[in-house]
Amino acid sequence: MIVVKVGGAEGINYEAVAKDAASLWKEGVKLLLVHGGSAETNKVAEALGHPPRFLTHPGGQVSRLTDRKTLEIFEMVYCGLVNKRLVELLQKEGANAIGLSGLDGRLFVGRRKTAVKYVENGKVKVHRGDYTGTVEEVNKALLDLLLQAGYLPVLTPPALSYENEAINTDGDQIAALLATLYGAEALVYLSNVPGLLARYPDEASLVREIPVERIEDPEYLALAQGRMKRKVMGAVEAVRGGVKRVVFADARVENPIRRALSGEGTVVR
Amino acid sequence: MIVVKVGGAEGINYEAVAKDAASLWKEGVKLLLVHGGSAETNKVAEALGHPPRFLTHPGGQVSRLTDRKTLEIFEMVYCGLVNKRLVELLQKEGANAIGLSGLDGRLFVGRRKTAVKYVENGKVKVHRGDYTGTVEEVNKALLDLLLQAGYLPVLTPPALSYENEAINTDGDQIAALLATLYGAEALVYLSNVPGLLARYPDEASLVREIPVERIEDPEYLALAQGRMKRKVMGAVEAVRGGVKRVVFADARVENPIRRALSGEGTVVR
Repeated sequence: MIVVKVGGAEGINYEAVAKDAASLWKEGVKLLLVHGGSAETNKVAEALGHPPRFLTHPGGQVSRLTDRKTLEIFEMVYCGLVNKRLVELLQKEGANAIGLSGLDGRLFVGRRKTAVKYVENGKVKVHRGDYTGTVEEVNKALLDLLLQAGYLPVLTPPALSYENEAINTDGDQIAALLATLYGAEALVYLSNVPGLLARYPDEASLVREIPVERIEDPEYLALAQGRMKRKVMGAVEAVRGGVKRVVFADARVENPIRRALSGEGTVVR
Repeated sequence: MIVVKVGGAEGINYEAVAKDAASLWKEGVKLLLVHGGSAETNKVAEALGHPPRFLTHPGGQVSRLTDRKTLEIFEMVYCGLVNKRLVELLQKEGANAIGLSGLDGRLFVGRRKTAVKYVENGKVKVHRGDYTGTVEEVNKALLDLLLQAGYLPVLTPPALSYENEAINTDGDQIAALLATLYGAEALVYLSNVPGLLARYPDEASLVREIPVERIEDPEYLALAQGRMKRKVMGAVEAVRGGVKRVVFADARVENPIRRALSGEGTVVR
């Protein structure tokens, strides 16, 4: 099993991703695709007069403030625009793709975080009523049913809360959860940069490899800070959880998945 | 099997539809839901600065002009907003719903009509490059797989063309095709009126019954004209194709499906 997360930033070459994924699928490789959609959500939200707002958490992470209206825009872009674009491109390339959100068949279920801590003017405040959360359960039986019948699942947030509400959840975390669940050969994160960059956005500062057993070394610990912290620690956790390797790679090029699998990008193992 | 098409006009009580569908599903009734989304597509298209345009065909029917941008808005509303709203409401009511478009798993495949005839200022013209068409094939194996595993499918256009393009197709026709394929007990069309009205929009002119064997009688033939032609003839065809009865009923009320099944509305049999 190979799990591929296609990021939602500007510059992603969806045609190349679909072509590469379809060609692997036709060779019999079992694949799960997970995708984002943040840049297009921002655009649509602006156009609909409900501009995006973000919260900076005390730990430094940034997340989208998700009121009910934002959640609906999120669903329109992730489940409608981006998911169906990928499914259509995959069908064009001969792969029988099937797009699902976490709501469908209770595929991703998790805990809603109704109170979210954030930092404003140096003070920690609490935002209530947010529709965000973390996936804790996967309906693996549904994925197995579709995989065994020969389909290529294309998966997207939102997830379903334990109270049966749609919640905005992190696609990177979903991909890691799936890769761990399947003990995947590889978990590939595709985005609009060549991998993890020691000095973002300097692409010459690409980190080639992060050996998990040396993550406590000062050289590697320095990478697991700031904006890369969540990505690096998520990858380390996935490898510790049984995923053979995690690769952060470029989605702006031809054959992005095969390149990642051949080691182009940042390999965590 | 009962096939329910939920219209996309203003005033549909989605909560009531979901509650009723979930309660039937929990009793073990096999259900397929198909839905529309036209009114909300119009609103979103206006808000995004790409207002809806419609073509009047020589036969009198009206259809949405669907360029690629309109198709994307259509997908956002049908596959994103409306489909996920229904799936979420059904999950809240305890039914394990799963939402799919016609692209997913090649569920609905059909012929793209690239050249569409329309009437303007009394002249017949041809519009080219439209992404519309008619569904001719259903991936019944996929529906059976999901039904047998206990899921409640919630289905929506677009369909996939034979050239693997997404195409805007008529949800009423999809519902009739599904009902015929399954030899359904009932095909229920829910909208924002109590059924077929002899003198639209006068709700007192509700037609109680259309006996298919008497469709050629002047009394009934008169109903199969103008704006009701497609609906009436579609229902007649479905009944001739093996569907036990077709009911046009109200989606603004509580228990809309059970009411339709008990004969409230217009019954074609």
